[in-house]
Amino acid sequence: MTEQNRRPSRRAGAGRKARTEKRLAGGIAQAIWPGMQGGQYRPLSDTDMKRIHDGALEILVTTGIGEPLPELLDIVLPLGCSMNEYGRLCFPKVMIEDIIAGAAREYTVYARGSRQGQGDIYCNGNRVYFSNSGSAVTTFDSDNKRYRASTMLDMYDFTRLVDRLDNIHMCGDTVVGTDVPNDYEHDMSMVYALLAGTEKPLCLSFRSRGNIGPAMELFDFASGGEGAFLKKPSVIFGGCPIVSPLRFGRENLEVMIDAARLGLVSDIAVAPQSGATAPATLAGTLAQVVAETLSCLAIVNLIRPGCPVTFATWPFITDLRTGSFSGGSGEQAVLAAAAIQMGNYYDLPNSVGAGMTDAKIPDAQYGYEKGLTIGLAALSGANRVCEVGGMMGSLMGCSFESMVIDNEAVGMIQRVVRGIEVSDETLSIETIHHCAVDPGHFLGNPQTLNVMESEYVYPELMDRSPSAQWEAEGSQDLFERSKKVSREILCDHYPNYFGRQADVAIRERFPIKISSDDMRPDNGRWRA
Amino acid sequence: MTEQNRRPSRRAGAGRKARTEKRLAGGIAQAIWPGMQGGQYRPLSDTDMKRIHDGALEILVTTGIGEPLPELLDIVLPLGCSMNEYGRLCFPKVMIEDIIAGAAREYTVYARGSRQGQGDIYCNGNRVYFSNSGSAVTTFDSDNKRYRASTMLDMYDFTRLVDRLDNIHMCGDTVVGTDVPNDYEHDMSMVYALLAGTEKPLCLSFRSRGNIGPAMELFDFASGGEGAFLKKPSVIFGGCPIVSPLRFGRENLEVMIDAARLGLVSDIAVAPQSGATAPATLAGTLAQVVAETLSCLAIVNLIRPGCPVTFATWPFITDLRTGSFSGGSGEQAVLAAAAIQMGNYYDLPNSVGAGMTDAKIPDAQYGYEKGLTIGLAALSGANRVCEVGGMMGSLMGCSFESMVIDNEAVGMIQRVVRGIEVSDETLSIETIHHCAVDPGHFLGNPQTLNVMESEYVYPELMDRSPSAQWEAEGSQDLFERSKKVSREILCDHYPNYFGRQADVAIRERFPIKISSDDMRPDNGRWRA
Repeated sequence: MTEQNRRPSRRAGAGRKARTEKRLAGGIAQAIWPGMQGGQYRPLSDTDMKRIHDGALEILVTTGIGEPLPELLDIVLPLGCSMNEYGRLCFPKVMIEDIIAGAAREYTVYARGSRQGQGDIYCNGNRVYFSNSGSAVTTFDSDNKRYRASTMLDMYDFTRLVDRLDNIHMCGDTVVGTDVPNDYEHDMSMVYALLAGTEKPLCLSFRSRGNIGPAMELFDFASGGEGAFLKKPSVIFGGCPIVSPLRFGRENLEVMIDAARLGLVSDIAVAPQSGATAPATLAGTLAQVVAETLSCLAIVNLIRPGCPVTFATWPFITDLRTGSFSGGSGEQAVLAAAAIQMGNYYDLPNSVGAGMTDAKIPDAQYGYEKGLTIGLAALSGANRVCEVGGMMGSLMGCSFESMVIDNEAVGMIQRVVRGIEVSDETLSIETIHHCAVDPGHFLGNPQTLNVMESEYVYPELMDRSPSAQWEAEGSQDLFERSKKVSREILCDHYPNYFGRQADVAIRERFPIKISSDDMRPDNGRWRA
Repeated sequence: MTEQNRRPSRRAGAGRKARTEKRLAGGIAQAIWPGMQGGQYRPLSDTDMKRIHDGALEILVTTGIGEPLPELLDIVLPLGCSMNEYGRLCFPKVMIEDIIAGAAREYTVYARGSRQGQGDIYCNGNRVYFSNSGSAVTTFDSDNKRYRASTMLDMYDFTRLVDRLDNIHMCGDTVVGTDVPNDYEHDMSMVYALLAGTEKPLCLSFRSRGNIGPAMELFDFASGGEGAFLKKPSVIFGGCPIVSPLRFGRENLEVMIDAARLGLVSDIAVAPQSGATAPATLAGTLAQVVAETLSCLAIVNLIRPGCPVTFATWPFITDLRTGSFSGGSGEQAVLAAAAIQMGNYYDLPNSVGAGMTDAKIPDAQYGYEKGLTIGLAALSGANRVCEVGGMMGSLMGCSFESMVIDNEAVGMIQRVVRGIEVSDETLSIETIHHCAVDPGHFLGNPQTLNVMESEYVYPELMDRSPSAQWEAEGSQDLFERSKKVSREILCDHYPNYFGRQADVAIRERFPIKISSDDMRPDNGRWRA
């Protein structure tokens, strides 16, 4: 193709300013929105899904889950579960099928403050939302291209960055505050960072059940007073109650039991690793992760029938050359999508990890691995595609630059998920006739201006300039451009959604390990 | 997640050398192979496809195609086509439907020499192959991060590079030899570069019909003597016989007519651009491109019933802020996949352009845009995903580094296309039971070693090392690593598949604008 062919000199006649004004006037539909319908990608056949389901049930009947807690047995044994000869907790087929049939089909996580309503997320059917999370122990220092230990202050910084990124609909615990070793101080400061930094719906995990109670006080502070949180829960929490293969993990199981008792969503994550803590066959890993996840669904529903659980099958891949986790492979992409298909097979609210690239820097590998894993998770209809924003290095690290890149890329992916509306109007047979017969250009046709905002997403970071312009501007790559944009936000946006008065009360009551000084715009920590 | 959780210290016990030996011994199945079955991603519903089909037929009945050649009219008017009041060639509904019903459902493009058989590509059903192509007028100079004019020698270099890249199954005319302005000299040298540089199946375009005859002589040289080419055609050719919206382009229409007369595959490409040379609505662009492509299918079949045509709907996207072509957007990804779905709706051998990133350098944008567009084209079941290897800058440039990156990324994508085999054996219920009850690790289980080559693709370029190792090795990105690998091949692999004797005869007979000196390994053009 020649440059001439592809770069018509006629312009659409509407500059960005005009479009922005028109959009602000409320007249123009958006091209993407939160909660679009996925499900167009289906790696498994109906027969495959039935076989995986049958396999999972067989595992729960025969093999069961090891190391159940006595307090759990007290609840579930009288209700029909049993112990097998290996001391493992087993679940009858009929019980599991009844529980699936009666389980909550949806839940809502509410936004707070000015985001209320529009920012709520509705986990049901094939609706697709995107969330950051990942509990990375390191943070990427982009100037030196090295990873340093993550801090609690990073958590606040990542959260306020996400607060400004439209396509990340839910905010999670992206990093671990490695500078706060005390579990109670850590969890309270983590909750504080999230609630102070954004009013988007939140997800996180607790290190122990004992921290739930105090956290509920903080939730109430953020929601507007005592008891306010439970009326419109804006935070869901969980963790991995299963240590694969097929054993319970004490702390997260306790958190799940307590959340169920409170009637809150159990936002778990079950993450067996193919070839390491699950079979090396992808089908075997699927059968196991479905069994493990169904066991959690059963427990919550035995404690409190109908209490919502995220069907959170998060199967991971092992690079069998080294035994290491690999987050960005084709195997990961197809396995995660298949896991979501199982969640939708059961019609249960679900989530999955995607975007967990093995790349250590935002490069072509990063883009390929994130594009495939996030794109296919979304197209398979995951209610929540988690681990999306900023994660790098096989979940070991998070990056501010990566967060803004992923936000824009999710916009592209949402446009794909939206698909193509086919109607008499969009088929445009008359417009085609007119433009073909009376040789004009479609650019000048009124339809083009009418649909240019509703049909297309326009990137800000992704470069579409001609190569000569790109060279003249310094031959920059997306990583370099993302540095600038992420720092602009980090220099500018220092929210504290608690408000000053509540903040004082909170700091008196809880050991918040983020100083007020570091939350002031003039603190000098970031330079644009 | 902690480092400890994700990096088990136990190793699978089989190093790369052992695996390679086992594979060479023939005992191990491969994880990916050419021609896998796509079709798992379906952006359009059945109703959508029927409406697009109806719309396309209406366009052909009412609007027709402008500027038909007299020699074309002599053929098609007596067979039932007609001219409308605007002097445009129209096709009756029943004729198009009959032609679709009777059209060739498949074709084979043969490999030559030692690749015969295994390297052939079978375009039918949902089989998926990957091809480079793109006719880029510039080539990326990775040392200086600038684009320079492409040369005929680049064409030889790109071809011999592709010859060494397993996941690019067909080789096409990646660049234009801008140093060879004469059309005859250009086309003959182009054919020479492709046939000398690889024995993979080939696709290319001619600048005029007059060059087909002489090229056939070159094809025979490569295939082993006079008349040998037509017995097992190893090259398909075409171009864009349509200038959108809905007009014929003289030169490529003439090539299509002549190819049909010879009984050869018409490997066309129909590329309207949404909002510029087609409606701004994606559905309208689809209706138009289907109409344009069906008109070509009709013409070929009216000339020679049953002669194979590629259903090559290549709809492109315009960035309506500037009017420029944009190859990497979400809109492009979903539109191309929908176009392929239409080809599979008709059960016609098809192709599409994908991987046409707007990025000017292999960066995160590059990966996201290529991953989504190539991945979804493959999953929608395109027989040939074209423009895959090396293209950058909205098709303006090609890059040696990008070619090796895309080759490896296609391996990931093929793994996704393959999907997940669900059987009693792969479900591994007994293995799961054994490993759960007798707490061992799956890494040590015999099944793991048995399937580690058949279930997983192991990248060579994509980095999976721990971050500390990555930093110690210089914090390189994939672009830097791809430089090294591409240059190793370019320094080492200088094939001339014609053989010395034929080469002498060819150079006497044709104006080959690639010197023999430049095809010698010791020419010093490339340094590792």
